[in-house]
Amino acid sequence: MSELLETTLRGTGAEVVLGHTRRFCLIGERINPTGRRIFQEQLRAGDLSAIERDVLAQVEGGADVLDVNMGVPMTDEPELLAKAITLVQQLTDKPICIDSSVVEALEAGLSVYQGRALVNSITAEDDRMALILPLVKKYDAAIIALPNDAEEIPMEADRRLELVQHIVDVATTEYGIAKQDIVIDPLAMPIGADTQVVNTTLETMRRIREVHGLNMTCGASNVSFGMPDRHTLGAAFLPMAMTAGLTSAIMDTRTPQIVTAVKAADLLLGHDDWGGAWIAAHRKKQASAAG
Amino acid sequence: MSELLETTLRGTGAEVVLGHTRRFCLIGERINPTGRRIFQEQLRAGDLSAIERDVLAQVEGGADVLDVNMGVPMTDEPELLAKAITLVQQLTDKPICIDSSVVEALEAGLSVYQGRALVNSITAEDDRMALILPLVKKYDAAIIALPNDAEEIPMEADRRLELVQHIVDVATTEYGIAKQDIVIDPLAMPIGADTQVVNTTLETMRRIREVHGLNMTCGASNVSFGMPDRHTLGAAFLPMAMTAGLTSAIMDTRTPQIVTAVKAADLLLGHDDWGGAWIAAHRKKQASAAG
Repeated sequence: MSELLETTLRGTGAEVVLGHTRRFCLIGERINPTGRRIFQEQLRAGDLSAIERDVLAQVEGGADVLDVNMGVPMTDEPELLAKAITLVQQLTDKPICIDSSVVEALEAGLSVYQGRALVNSITAEDDRMALILPLVKKYDAAIIALPNDAEEIPMEADRRLELVQHIVDVATTEYGIAKQDIVIDPLAMPIGADTQVVNTTLETMRRIREVHGLNMTCGASNVSFGMPDRHTLGAAFLPMAMTAGLTSAIMDTRTPQIVTAVKAADLLLGHDDWGGAWIAAHRKKQASAAG
Repeated sequence: MSELLETTLRGTGAEVVLGHTRRFCLIGERINPTGRRIFQEQLRAGDLSAIERDVLAQVEGGADVLDVNMGVPMTDEPELLAKAITLVQQLTDKPICIDSSVVEALEAGLSVYQGRALVNSITAEDDRMALILPLVKKYDAAIIALPNDAEEIPMEADRRLELVQHIVDVATTEYGIAKQDIVIDPLAMPIGADTQVVNTTLETMRRIREVHGLNMTCGASNVSFGMPDRHTLGAAFLPMAMTAGLTSAIMDTRTPQIVTAVKAADLLLGHDDWGGAWIAAHRKKQASAAG
């Protein structure tokens, strides 16, 4: 059993620490124009007002960290992402997960960011690591890494573990990234595509925890893609994944069913001493229901 | 890794098989007068009519097996349990879990039972095993066994594993019970008493699956005792426990939140091919909502 590692993130306020004996970290994913036509048009016109609403809603829903993605076709993504990050940091003191596939946008975002960011993401491809990891090092950030490469998204835990090993080796020895600052996304695939994908993901998680002690995150809604009653599937999946070593998830925190399931699992796994947070949340809900 | 075992139960209809690659088995627990004053008075007066309502509600809620307990003070429990079992078998073709702490009641129940019953329960105490296991053998039943003894409910997984080993050794070698007919209750304790009890229970489950491949069951509501929002805790606990090897639970199936969480976990763990049961349940719910 490897030492269980902790990843420290900071916004302008209190720090957030990802860890295997800590409360699960909710990364609010809504500050992202993908698939949102009106939001894209607003951003293209320089109107960032929708971001405020999204930030407040994700924080209200329980987000500990905010994922910020500004991938809008036909815009200057580096400039837009830098602006959005500055705006989000005026709205909340929580840490940000800077999310882009464009290296220049990641650098622009990191250059204006105040605190210790999480960068989303690298894969096991050497050329991508060569572009992004020097930025992660320069700006003292943490990094989400996916164990796939240009050839494939591996469907076997063995191959995912090999790619995790490669990422850890390259990041730590070639780029001087601290091992605890690598957060693995073990790849959660849709259960509708193949009934064994979640078993593979859970096995991958257990082995990453066992071998590396690394923190992990994933897109929580992927597993339920194409199925009915997706929130119930998400609310079952995250507690299951938490027993296997998942320590955070990227999700829309406006879904109380899934957020509450995570808090229940935190209590059950001993991450919420004496149920203090669980009982407080229940009282708050009662008070708000009573008006 | 031990071979994963299957436990076959039969009522008057189709058989139910507990197994690690099968759909989770819901054991409806409501046919039990404990804590129900009016039901107790009815039973004392020989009025078994409430049983019909309870059986139908548990089956409607999704029970695969029905736990029947007739522990009413100041009654002839053997006679009452035999009557109740005969009545329940007229109402449903599902298997029964015959539940009593009175050996004579277990025997009376087994003697009238049609099919292959599950007996609830023994502990690791040799004198209890000596009284009950010969009945289990004689009537070709399966047995729920709890890894505690007269001295203690052990709080460490190591000690629970020792007691499981003792039960397996005694039951198979001294009483000729087939190993696959032993269903372990790994002891789920209230999280409110100690924040580590669920971790201990999950570890116990993983090790029982690994070492023995046995089926397991537990009282699903125990973990949430004394906490608010118990159903949400149950709905998180069972999927977590299913990843650790729990293959059935004794629960009130009138709680759709928990039943649905179990069905979600069945889908995610690959026990519901192509999501057939999940999608069918969703359609049924939609049709019933549409009136």
